[in-house]
Amino acid sequence: MKAVGIIAEYNPFHNGHAYHLQEAKRVTGADAAVVVMSGNFVQRGEPAILDKWERTKLALHNGADLMVELPVFSAVQPGHLFAEGAVRILAALGVDELVFGSEHPEVDFLDLAKQAEEIQEAGASADKTQTYAAAYAADLEEKTGFKLEDPNDILAFSYAKAVLKLGVDMKLHPIARKAAAYHDQDIDDDQAIASASSIRLALHKGKWDRVEGVVPADTLQALKEKPNTLAFEGVFFNLLRYRLLTDTVGQLGQVYQMAEGLEHRLVGVATAKEAPQSYQSFIKAVKSKRYTFARMQRTMLYTLLNIKVDQMQAAMADSYIRLLGFTDEGQAYLSEVKRKARLPIISRVDQGLAKANLRLDYKAGLIWQLLAGQAGSQEGQDLSRRPIHYMKEND
Amino acid sequence: MKAVGIIAEYNPFHNGHAYHLQEAKRVTGADAAVVVMSGNFVQRGEPAILDKWERTKLALHNGADLMVELPVFSAVQPGHLFAEGAVRILAALGVDELVFGSEHPEVDFLDLAKQAEEIQEAGASADKTQTYAAAYAADLEEKTGFKLEDPNDILAFSYAKAVLKLGVDMKLHPIARKAAAYHDQDIDDDQAIASASSIRLALHKGKWDRVEGVVPADTLQALKEKPNTLAFEGVFFNLLRYRLLTDTVGQLGQVYQMAEGLEHRLVGVATAKEAPQSYQSFIKAVKSKRYTFARMQRTMLYTLLNIKVDQMQAAMADSYIRLLGFTDEGQAYLSEVKRKARLPIISRVDQGLAKANLRLDYKAGLIWQLLAGQAGSQEGQDLSRRPIHYMKEND
Repeated sequence: MKAVGIIAEYNPFHNGHAYHLQEAKRVTGADAAVVVMSGNFVQRGEPAILDKWERTKLALHNGADLMVELPVFSAVQPGHLFAEGAVRILAALGVDELVFGSEHPEVDFLDLAKQAEEIQEAGASADKTQTYAAAYAADLEEKTGFKLEDPNDILAFSYAKAVLKLGVDMKLHPIARKAAAYHDQDIDDDQAIASASSIRLALHKGKWDRVEGVVPADTLQALKEKPNTLAFEGVFFNLLRYRLLTDTVGQLGQVYQMAEGLEHRLVGVATAKEAPQSYQSFIKAVKSKRYTFARMQRTMLYTLLNIKVDQMQAAMADSYIRLLGFTDEGQAYLSEVKRKARLPIISRVDQGLAKANLRLDYKAGLIWQLLAGQAGSQEGQDLSRRPIHYMKEND
Repeated sequence: MKAVGIIAEYNPFHNGHAYHLQEAKRVTGADAAVVVMSGNFVQRGEPAILDKWERTKLALHNGADLMVELPVFSAVQPGHLFAEGAVRILAALGVDELVFGSEHPEVDFLDLAKQAEEIQEAGASADKTQTYAAAYAADLEEKTGFKLEDPNDILAFSYAKAVLKLGVDMKLHPIARKAAAYHDQDIDDDQAIASASSIRLALHKGKWDRVEGVVPADTLQALKEKPNTLAFEGVFFNLLRYRLLTDTVGQLGQVYQMAEGLEHRLVGVATAKEAPQSYQSFIKAVKSKRYTFARMQRTMLYTLLNIKVDQMQAAMADSYIRLLGFTDEGQAYLSEVKRKARLPIISRVDQGLAKANLRLDYKAGLIWQLLAGQAGSQEGQDLSRRPIHYMKEND
C-alpha cells in the first residue's frame, strides 16, 4: 500500500484541511493518508481548543486514514524541532512522501535545504538568537534568489532540513494553500476556506456565522458541544501565576528553555504591585526583544507543565508512535508496516507507560483537562484509551 | 505599663472576642492588650476569611492595643507548635500575663503541665501518632483527676507546656468562655456570642441574619464588602490539584509533614479516573486513620504553598515580631519594651526581608490574594505595608 504523510495541528479541523487531505492523496496516488498531529497543546504553546481525540475523529471523518500523536516534546517546540519530531515519526512508519502547503509550491525545498547546508558549512556567522530561517534567509537569498519569508515556506524548509538531518528517504510535495493565507484574520462571507487562527478568532468573538461556512458540519457540532475553551487563557494564567508565586527561582530555573535569567523576571513581574492581569499583558511585560512571542508562550507552557531540562531531553531521546485512530485503510497500512516500524508503536497507555516514556504526554493531558474544567472526568486523555477505529460504511 | 497577652485567630472577629479582650484587661488590670494573631492562614490549614489587615483593624476597634502576626510557620501547626510560637512572641515583647478561654477556668494549667512533664519523665509510653494531649490524657487523669478533653482546655494546656518549655515567666489566666462552646454550630436567635466556626458556617449558608447579632457592626460591614471568600475552597482545590498533577512524587515528598508515602497517595487520587471533585471529598479519600482531618488540611496547605522541610525548619528557627497595628496605648507599650525585645521587631517588609526571614509569610500573602482573586492588586499583603495606627479619638 502506498501512504502519504501529513503534519498537522488541526486546531480546529477545517475545510482547508479536508481539501489538503484530498489533494495529498490525489497528487501522490496514495491509498492512505498518515497524519502526525500535535496532541493537546500546539506549537505556539497554547492548549488545543478541542482535545486530541475529538480532532482525531474529525480528521478521520474527513479524509485521514491513520492518525498518530506528535508528542508534546516535539509538538511544542521551535519549527526545526517540531519538524524533526514529525518527520521522524512518519519515516518510522515507512511513509516516504510528504505533502504540505506552501506559498511557493514550485520551489524544491530539499534542494533549498541542501544549499542552506552548504552555506552553514562554509561558516556563515548566523545569529544564534534568531530563528533558523531568519538567521540564514539573507545568505540563502543571495545564493539562490529565493526569499524564505512566508510562514508555510519556512515550515516546508524545516521539513526539508529534517529529512536531510535524519537521513530518511522522503519525497516532498509542496502544494498551494487554497484561498486563505496563514495570517489572514478575516473570514469573508463567500469564503469556504479560512485559516485556523481566523476561525479561533471568530470563535472567541462568538461569530458562529463566520465559522459555519468554513468547517465541516461535524467540526461545527464538536465546537458547539465542547467545554468553553475560550476560558482557557484565564485559567492557564491563574495556574501559571500560582506556580510563579510558589516555586523558588532555583526550581523555575530548571524549566526547559528558561534562559538568560528569565525566571527572575517572571517572578519579579508576577509578584509586582499592579501585576499584569491578563496572560497577554503578562507575556508582553516579561518578554525581551530576543524572544519571539511564540517562544515566550512555549516557555510559559513548559513552566505550567513543570517540565525540567533533563525530563525534556530524556523524552526527546525516546520517541514513539502513539496511535490515535484509523480507518480500515489506515489499519491495513499499519498491519503492513508494523513489523518494520523503527519506533515503538503504542496503542494503549497503562500506568507503567504513563510513568515512563509517556509521562510528558500524560501530564499534558491531565493539565489540558484541568484547563478545560474536566479534571477527574471519567474518560481521561490517555489511560486505557484505545485508538478510534472509524468505519466509513457507518456514515 | 502593664500588658496582657492574648493568642487569637479572629476568623472572623466576633462579640466573644470583644468580651474576651475586655475581660482580659479587667482581670489583669492591664493598660494594653497585646494580641498575637494568625496571619492569612489559620491553624486548620484554611485561608482566613478576611486578610490579616482587616482582622487587625477590627480587633483594634474592639479592644486590642497591639497586634502582631503569628507567622505562618507557627500559625499553621499542631497545637503545641502553635502555642510555642505564640508564647515566644508574647514573651519576647515582655508580656508576662496570658489570658485565654477555657472550659475549666478553675484549673491551674501550669501545674497540670508540670504533672504531665513528670509523667513524661517517668517514661510513659505515649503513642507518637496521637496528638500530645490525647497521648497523655489518660495518664494525666489518673494522676490528677482532671480529664483533659475539651478543646479550649487542650489549647490552654499547650500554652502552659510552652511556658515551661521556653522557660519564660508568664502567668496564666484561664477565663470562662461566654455562652458558645467551640463546636457549637448553631446560632440561636437571642444569642449575642457565637463561635467563629458557627459564624463561618452561617456565612457559607448566606444566613446574614444569624451573623448580624453576634459580630460587631464593623465586622459585619467588612464581611459584606469583602471578596467572595466562600469560593476559597474551590480555588484552593484547583490549585492544589494542579500542583499534584505537575510536580514529581520526589518533589512532593520534600513538602513539610509529607510522611508515610502520603505523596504517592495524593498523586494516585488526583490522577485517578473519577477523582474527587471537591476538596472535602479529596481529603477524605487520601486521609488515613492516623491523620486527623486538621493535620491533613495543614499538609495540603504546605503543599499548596510548596513549603519544603528545610525551608520550614529554617523559618521556625528564625522568628520575629511582625507589627500589624496598634492604638496609642499599644504604641506606648511598644516604645517601653522595644529596646529589650528578644526577637527582631519588623514594622515594614522590603524586598530583602521578603526574600529572607519573611519569605513564608510573604508567599502566604501572595497566595491568599490569589485565592481571593486579588492577585497583583495595588495593595499587597506585605511589601511596603505599614502597621495600622488606630486613633480612638477618631471614632
